[in-house]
Amino acid sequence: MKKIVFSSLLSFVLPLSAVTSNGWIEDYVNTIPDFPIPGIQFKWYSPLLNDPAAFKKAIHTFAERYRDSEIDAIVGLDSRGFIFGTALAYELDLPLVLVRKAGKLPGEVVKISYELEYGKASFELEKSALKPGQKVLVIDDVIATGGTVKAAGQLVESLGASVTEVASLIELSALNGRSNIPYPVFSLLTID
Amino acid sequence: MKKIVFSSLLSFVLPLSAVTSNGWIEDYVNTIPDFPIPGIQFKWYSPLLNDPAAFKKAIHTFAERYRDSEIDAIVGLDSRGFIFGTALAYELDLPLVLVRKAGKLPGEVVKISYELEYGKASFELEKSALKPGQKVLVIDDVIATGGTVKAAGQLVESLGASVTEVASLIELSALNGRSNIPYPVFSLLTID
Repeated sequence: MKKIVFSSLLSFVLPLSAVTSNGWIEDYVNTIPDFPIPGIQFKWYSPLLNDPAAFKKAIHTFAERYRDSEIDAIVGLDSRGFIFGTALAYELDLPLVLVRKAGKLPGEVVKISYELEYGKASFELEKSALKPGQKVLVIDDVIATGGTVKAAGQLVESLGASVTEVASLIELSALNGRSNIPYPVFSLLTID
Repeated sequence: MKKIVFSSLLSFVLPLSAVTSNGWIEDYVNTIPDFPIPGIQFKWYSPLLNDPAAFKKAIHTFAERYRDSEIDAIVGLDSRGFIFGTALAYELDLPLVLVRKAGKLPGEVVKISYELEYGKASFELEKSALKPGQKVLVIDDVIATGGTVKAAGQLVESLGASVTEVASLIELSALNGRSNIPYPVFSLLTID
């Protein structure tokens, strides 16, 4: 009960972008220790994907936030970000744009290398995917150190488009990704 | 005009599962020669993803086919199959189950190796994802040799579930994937 009152206070005092507590989602997220490598506490939400009503509720929460915004496209990140990007783009009737791991997109692309929570990787985006001046929402499943969504945002900006916000299902706040991400961040579930 | 008449004849003569021509989708698919390796004619449908009305039309075509079926879950294949699997599961209010490349799913999984149109790979599926007796639709973006969806079907069956049908946006008929797939196949666009 205390927690509920506290959340209500927060939503009154803080701007909407800081309200990230939606406790119900916790019931659909498992923690798998030492996956994919030792020391990582992997957050895995297959129960959410397997429950159509819960998944729809999550997507509707995103959709309500962005339905009346001026977002021109949803940018989903390879590969689990495709799930949330697709569903949100579908719900909002917005174009879906893919940021993919290097070597997966044909034609002319822009490319960026970035550091992961564990390891390194490169992202690509088709040059034709976005036009200068377009505003996008970047969406992924989990924000850890923030390196992934920051890199995606830089790709978006390299085409002259801009990132209105970054959205994620889960944010691992102990890794302080927000401090690394130069955009507003909205997450449905924040985990310490 | 001739083509349209021929399609109408086909839909009259053949069972529904063989009717795979939806010419309008061709306008949203580009062919990129020699990608990702020489000799491959890569079919890339980002114009479909970037056009919300066209994407919705494609998903609705799948949904009309499966809305009144007895399918219990949609199985999307890593990673572009996530896009179509997510949208269809969302539209039909069905559970979304992921078949992923090896090493990506935590916990107890079943695993299978298979041959691609170019190269080899392994798929995994969480043991808890499906129950014996459940009926699933396996969906991917492109059917080439059929090895990928066949492997996914075998994973589904290894958990005691069954594959009602395999669906794809595009089928490359010259590679004769259907002969390699032991399930009914439904594709929105067949390309020689």
